Amino acid sequence: MNPILVEALRGGTVESSHRGALAVIDAAGEVVVAIGDVDRPIFPRSAVKVLQAIPLVESGAADRLALTDEELAIACASHNGEPAHTRVVAGMLAKAGLDVDALECGTHWPYLDSAARSLATAGGEPSALNNNCSGKHAGFLCVACQRANGGDLARFARGYVAPQHPVMREVTAALQAATGYDLGTAPRGTDGCSIPTFAIPLKNLALAFARVATGQGLSPARAEAVTRLRRAVARSPFMVGGTERFDTRVMQQLGERVFCKVGAEGVFCAALPERGLGVAIKIDDGNNARAAEVTMAAVIEAFVPLDANEAAFMRDLSDVTLRNWNGISVGSLRATHALRRACDRRRA
Amino acid sequence: MNPILVEALRGGTVESSHRGALAVIDAAGEVVVAIGDVDRPIFPRSAVKVLQAIPLVESGAADRLALTDEELAIACASHNGEPAHTRVVAGMLAKAGLDVDALECGTHWPYLDSAARSLATAGGEPSALNNNCSGKHAGFLCVACQRANGGDLARFARGYVAPQHPVMREVTAALQAATGYDLGTAPRGTDGCSIPTFAIPLKNLALAFARVATGQGLSPARAEAVTRLRRAVARSPFMVGGTERFDTRVMQQLGERVFCKVGAEGVFCAALPERGLGVAIKIDDGNNARAAEVTMAAVIEAFVPLDANEAAFMRDLSDVTLRNWNGISVGSLRATHALRRACDRRRA
Repeated sequence: MNPILVEALRGGTVESSHRGALAVIDAAGEVVVAIGDVDRPIFPRSAVKVLQAIPLVESGAADRLALTDEELAIACASHNGEPAHTRVVAGMLAKAGLDVDALECGTHWPYLDSAARSLATAGGEPSALNNNCSGKHAGFLCVACQRANGGDLARFARGYVAPQHPVMREVTAALQAATGYDLGTAPRGTDGCSIPTFAIPLKNLALAFARVATGQGLSPARAEAVTRLRRAVARSPFMVGGTERFDTRVMQQLGERVFCKVGAEGVFCAALPERGLGVAIKIDDGNNARAAEVTMAAVIEAFVPLDANEAAFMRDLSDVTLRNWNGISVGSLRATHALRRACDRRRA
Repeated sequence: MNPILVEALRGGTVESSHRGALAVIDAAGEVVVAIGDVDRPIFPRSAVKVLQAIPLVESGAADRLALTDEELAIACASHNGEPAHTRVVAGMLAKAGLDVDALECGTHWPYLDSAARSLATAGGEPSALNNNCSGKHAGFLCVACQRANGGDLARFARGYVAPQHPVMREVTAALQAATGYDLGTAPRGTDGCSIPTFAIPLKNLALAFARVATGQGLSPARAEAVTRLRRAVARSPFMVGGTERFDTRVMQQLGERVFCKVGAEGVFCAALPERGLGVAIKIDDGNNARAAEVTMAAVIEAFVPLDANEAAFMRDLSDVTLRNWNGISVGSLRATHALRRACDRRRA
């Protein structure tokens, strides 16, 4: 039974609560914090996009196509589908000699409501470019471009989301190497954007992000790839999420000192390079991002050295004032004492 | 510790789970099903709108203003803010001699994304009419109109959302009488639409809905009021929610045999008149409606006599196929065996 990590209060009374598990681990595999069941395999969903983007750099595609920081960042993103995002994705596809029709992620309206309304007002309809995973998929197609090596790219790329496609095999191999977990026997599901997702223990996910933080435990080429991806996101944090998004806001504030990435169903992973630590969170109910975000904010507060302004910024994300439609404060969303205590014991 | 009532599966593996509590009770107060902690006070939020609408009928306002079924139904609603909803609310306000400016619920874009986009495309901006609670608030203003009794209505009505306002006192008295719970000492919070919300045990909430189902345990005037409100919703189920909404779909299918109403933070209440039962559900994490809906669907399956078509319809709501952006089935959302067993033991 996982403990309560986050509580929602209304008028001073606990209204709802979120149980979950958290692992903070260093690159040597030493467990710094383990709350709840960190051995049960969970689907990391979009939280591991930076690991899935390793082949984009390692294959040489990023160099050959002269991908920019924005393009590398959006390959690691679950973006809002805002115009700035779709423009960058379209540019990546063009560099590979492809267009929106090559994307196999499916189509949805932009996640950001105001962007969806603007698109509608302009008489537009969403395309696969607006899909929050379109940057990741454009990255896969750049790998396909590299591997097709002048052959029939459209034909080679078709079906790239399938587990047995050469591109997806390469992506899965990078994920397996980073997590040190056998994905051949792991439970497998299909993700929202149609690629495979593998269930992996939080312990292994946190280890993978400690490797992202330090490069330790990865081949030199992969260590270089994750460092390059991490820095690209730090330089273009808007690409990884967008307006009002937790990941974007935190990385705009803290730069390279935190690399964090949300996943669907209450998952959150992070690399903390200053401390050489990796973080992996799964909220049991997985219902939306609120509890995973509060947990991540509390972990960052505990493990990243912050000045007063930064500390106040992060506290607003780990102890969130809830307001109603009239702007009246009606309650809060906060990290539990149990979560803070478990982190504080190990922050030294 | 409340048990797991609903699980989300991906590729056959449990990805997320929802704990919660459930009470099914008859009008004599006999507990038919109690799962989890049914004695802990929880904020019922919008699930009790039908109880908060009792003064609208009891005061004579509904008769004096000749309110239609649609208008009574929307007084019990958390609607999508679609054009059909805002039109009915505007009409109610006009009958009371008021307009949108009298509403104190706050403004938000329509809950239904396509309605929000249509409004934006037409160059519109949302008003308080689009607030999901605007019908309930219009009902409060109709009570104010009745009580002002020809005096200065605008002045009398101002601040009607405050706990000490005469209209809100009348609403609170009806809620207390229906639930049999002392709201003077109950934890109090402010709801999303700025009226007070009181924490009440699920047992008392289920009892209140058994009273809605049967009229037993209420004064004759209140029994008549809840019957009239319940029937108005059954005749106009679109008003209580709208396009794609669970409450609307279930009542379109089952008519007067189920009165159900969702609330924020994982609350769901229902009256089952054929069985004389009341139902109250709270999902611990409260994060969105998915788990409360699945639980309610399983309760309806267990306690409402259904023909084969109706049973298939309800099973699609208690064992929901989850599809991704490409329409591929990726998993399901389902009632747990523990929940089904607890209901089945008592369905006879």
